[in-house]
Amino acid sequence: MSQSLVPEIASAHSPGDVDASTEARPRDLRTVKADPNYWYPVAWSRELKRGKTIGTRYAGHPIALVRPMDGTVFALEDRCAHRQVPLSKGQVEGEAVKCCYHGWAYGRSGRCIDVPYLGKGKLPNGVKTYPCREVEGLIFIFPGDPDLAESVPLPSLSRAADPGYKTRRFGERVKCHYSFMHENLMDMNHQFMHSKQMGKMKPRFLGGRDEPRLVEARYSFARTGGKQPWGEALVFGERRGTNAKDQHRDVMTIRTTYPYQTLSIATGDEPPVMDLFIVYVPQDEEQLTCRVFGMLSIKRPKLKGALELAWPLFVGFTNRIFAEDREIVELEQQAWNAQGGDRNQEVFPVINTLRDLLRRCGIQADASDA
Amino acid sequence: MSQSLVPEIASAHSPGDVDASTEARPRDLRTVKADPNYWYPVAWSRELKRGKTIGTRYAGHPIALVRPMDGTVFALEDRCAHRQVPLSKGQVEGEAVKCCYHGWAYGRSGRCIDVPYLGKGKLPNGVKTYPCREVEGLIFIFPGDPDLAESVPLPSLSRAADPGYKTRRFGERVKCHYSFMHENLMDMNHQFMHSKQMGKMKPRFLGGRDEPRLVEARYSFARTGGKQPWGEALVFGERRGTNAKDQHRDVMTIRTTYPYQTLSIATGDEPPVMDLFIVYVPQDEEQLTCRVFGMLSIKRPKLKGALELAWPLFVGFTNRIFAEDREIVELEQQAWNAQGGDRNQEVFPVINTLRDLLRRCGIQADASDA
Amino acid sequence: MSQSLVPEIASAHSPGDVDASTEARPRDLRTVKADPNYWYPVAWSRELKRGKTIGTRYAGHPIALVRPMDGTVFALEDRCAHRQVPLSKGQVEGEAVKCCYHGWAYGRSGRCIDVPYLGKGKLPNGVKTYPCREVEGLIFIFPGDPDLAESVPLPSLSRAADPGYKTRRFGERVKCHYSFMHENLMDMNHQFMHSKQMGKMKPRFLGGRDEPRLVEARYSFARTGGKQPWGEALVFGERRGTNAKDQHRDVMTIRTTYPYQTLSIATGDEPPVMDLFIVYVPQDEEQLTCRVFGMLSIKRPKLKGALELAWPLFVGFTNRIFAEDREIVELEQQAWNAQGGDRNQEVFPVINTLRDLLRRCGIQADASDA
Repeated sequence: MSQSLVPEIASAHSPGDVDASTEARPRDLRTVKADPNYWYPVAWSRELKRGKTIGTRYAGHPIALVRPMDGTVFALEDRCAHRQVPLSKGQVEGEAVKCCYHGWAYGRSGRCIDVPYLGKGKLPNGVKTYPCREVEGLIFIFPGDPDLAESVPLPSLSRAADPGYKTRRFGERVKCHYSFMHENLMDMNHQFMHSKQMGKMKPRFLGGRDEPRLVEARYSFARTGGKQPWGEALVFGERRGTNAKDQHRDVMTIRTTYPYQTLSIATGDEPPVMDLFIVYVPQDEEQLTCRVFGMLSIKRPKLKGALELAWPLFVGFTNRIFAEDREIVELEQQAWNAQGGDRNQEVFPVINTLRDLLRRCGIQADASDA
Repeated sequence: MSQSLVPEIASAHSPGDVDASTEARPRDLRTVKADPNYWYPVAWSRELKRGKTIGTRYAGHPIALVRPMDGTVFALEDRCAHRQVPLSKGQVEGEAVKCCYHGWAYGRSGRCIDVPYLGKGKLPNGVKTYPCREVEGLIFIFPGDPDLAESVPLPSLSRAADPGYKTRRFGERVKCHYSFMHENLMDMNHQFMHSKQMGKMKPRFLGGRDEPRLVEARYSFARTGGKQPWGEALVFGERRGTNAKDQHRDVMTIRTTYPYQTLSIATGDEPPVMDLFIVYVPQDEEQLTCRVFGMLSIKRPKLKGALELAWPLFVGFTNRIFAEDREIVELEQQAWNAQGGDRNQEVFPVINTLRDLLRRCGIQADASDA
Repeated sequence: MSQSLVPEIASAHSPGDVDASTEARPRDLRTVKADPNYWYPVAWSRELKRGKTIGTRYAGHPIALVRPMDGTVFALEDRCAHRQVPLSKGQVEGEAVKCCYHGWAYGRSGRCIDVPYLGKGKLPNGVKTYPCREVEGLIFIFPGDPDLAESVPLPSLSRAADPGYKTRRFGERVKCHYSFMHENLMDMNHQFMHSKQMGKMKPRFLGGRDEPRLVEARYSFARTGGKQPWGEALVFGERRGTNAKDQHRDVMTIRTTYPYQTLSIATGDEPPVMDLFIVYVPQDEEQLTCRVFGMLSIKRPKLKGALELAWPLFVGFTNRIFAEDREIVELEQQAWNAQGGDRNQEVFPVINTLRDLLRRCGIQADASDA
């Protein structure tokens, strides 16, 4: 990847370009499905009480999560084998969930273990299951080939378990393809959009990395106007001004390690002052909506309690920024819908590199739709 | 039909089955249209005041019901021949309805009898009419071939006219194919779903009947837990407990007499304590929504006034049960939509018999869509 | 065009007619697109403050209107060339608008004049512009071939600039094809619909004109019942009763001068007491919704201040009439949608002439869809 500070316009994909052959034209990124052979979070632990079941979904597949009174969470296809109604409307009894309609019961393995009005020897087939893990307040499933689940590691949730950090868990549904989210975070030139929240910041692209499953971009910033917001001072544990010594002092590193994304801010060789893990889980079959699961860890300052006191302010600050991001990516998706395809004219090389990664790592099965 | 208490699993239609030939595979029941050559209710009498017109519909066909100041109700296609706007927005004058837009007038025969700005000799064609009857508070139309209307009897509304019974008229729109409603009521194993309202009841299938236009199922019940609800005690005129003498004492008979459905509860040879007439009228052209017209008759107890006093409680009780039924059948329809077809794995023979009836009696015109 | 008071039924287009050949059948008017080579209003001047930008649309095309602090309004395609998000969400700086997302800037010519993180020599292509004019409180664009804009005149806004008149600017979105609006206003037999607001009025068709780009209809009226409404008395500056001298005294002239429409009421050779300019601008690509821009001018009476005093009453009166019109044309559109085409059975020759005009002057590009 180019390490130059001024990206090469030559690498931009212009919508007016006519490729020599149809085969050479890259597939529209917004039609690329996420690779299901990874662990994806589908719920926060706090959403699922003991002895209860809730419904969630991955890319159009309804999933019932079940937490028995004793034992670990498990995940079933959220359709009773009988009449296809959601098992997540049912009752948990022991390690089984009973469908609310006629009481068919399913165990952890998905096998139907009881139909109240049928002999035990005659039980019908059960339902599909998903490998399921719970870690640091997140419930993950493996939507792809179950045989691969063991060999695919869970993502590192960075500082979520580190007592030196305080972590905010956040997220909501966003009406866009997950790729818009990756591009939004990776391109720090969009700081322009947050100038009302952040003041005027001039980003400097420091370089990046381009690996088979990873794209990285590093930036530093200079404040060119406006006051540093409270939220940012909180992150750094001290104020940053517009004086020369504070300019380009901290390095922000953004990484898409497929299919996850991280962002950290560090000064010199010190541990990061902020560390974000975030993932955008496709909701509908077309994957044009996603649910965000984000874990934002802030290094605790020396002054005990300061972070707790300021936390509500910090939550409001990050919420306002995320609301701006959400509005713009949903407008991008709406434009894609209205235009019937991707007309983006990207001029920033790192974003084109990221797009290639998402295209390469995703699923392009029905290429005939391209 | 099997009279055994344990239904044969062998007769279940498993979604994994591969038929030897395409022709042998039964058509997806949810794509079968109701036979229009029956009388269908389209409104309650109380909805249509004298000298007024209202709009209703049958399977996508808009229908204007007109009640002149004098004379019986009649039914017209609810589109002015001129500009297709609803005649039900118009004014009733004598035995005619005038379109609200330019004042075109139509009589009981559907003929256009006046265009205010045209000579009488030049009147354009009129609109379609439907045979129409009003009985026991229900307005019926015959949506099929009008020449058949005379020879097809109105359904018996059982106890609605019997002073020994008090009748509740109820119903609402439900977003599902009418067949889900028939199956819901016929399969009493779904008592499981109402255990919050009804306590725990174990149904026993006593047998049934299978005729060209009729399917019947008979059940008795044993209370295995919970207290008898007020609403049920009201129906029986006395309390039923969990003691042996009360178990399996009453017989519930559910019948689909195409296209109608009835449910009655009787003890021994006495007249039924409860009698329900219900019908599910397709609303949209695809027939994936329906409007319910139900008449629920309760035998008046010896103690005069007790039923009137308890009526509000009874209405609340039945409303809660119906709300549970509505939620589940709408979830079934949603699953059908999402899965693009019927994946039900029915194991209860009487329900498969009912499904065959609904398939056989309905309209399968465009079989190519199957 | 026939000048007879009784229109010829023979000229009605009956939906039952079978044309000798497919080519002879007129295209469904509701699929005819408006000709873009005219000036169309897209916003009221008061909606766009100095130094601001707003988004509007013409037939599915999003348009950003920009009013610099100094200088005239200009119109750009409302999609940033970079990521297609609306420029109307951006900031106006001098004579340029900066996209809210990454700060790309565009001038009046649509050229991209700055990308904050790119060298000036490498700027990407800009966005499309539209010829734009502002007159009498309306902002017009020319959505068709820009080279034709100079030679196509703006419409006359009749009395909007005349101090002898007071003008109401009004309009809203209506969910129908623009042709329903033209037909509604041109056919005064629909006075029937407004009889609650207007009393009973019998229209007399006095004749009309049929020219390549113009259709006109003239009417007089006799009051056959009800009292003259306040609003109408206000228009005439005096009361009209049901006595003979007041009948058929005033002439109403309605004209579609493609693509605009006007309505004026005058007594003898005096200047009109009322003058309406109105246009129905397609909103969506299918042109099945429109936005109304209406300018309704009332001649000021000799008694100064009377019109101002009565104005709120007049606004309420016209709003009620317009609400009735809107409901009925939206019902026409709904019928067209449900029936999958135009089943109108028009018997009034002037309306058929108008339909021919709208078909002839509109765009029938994709005739294969007819």
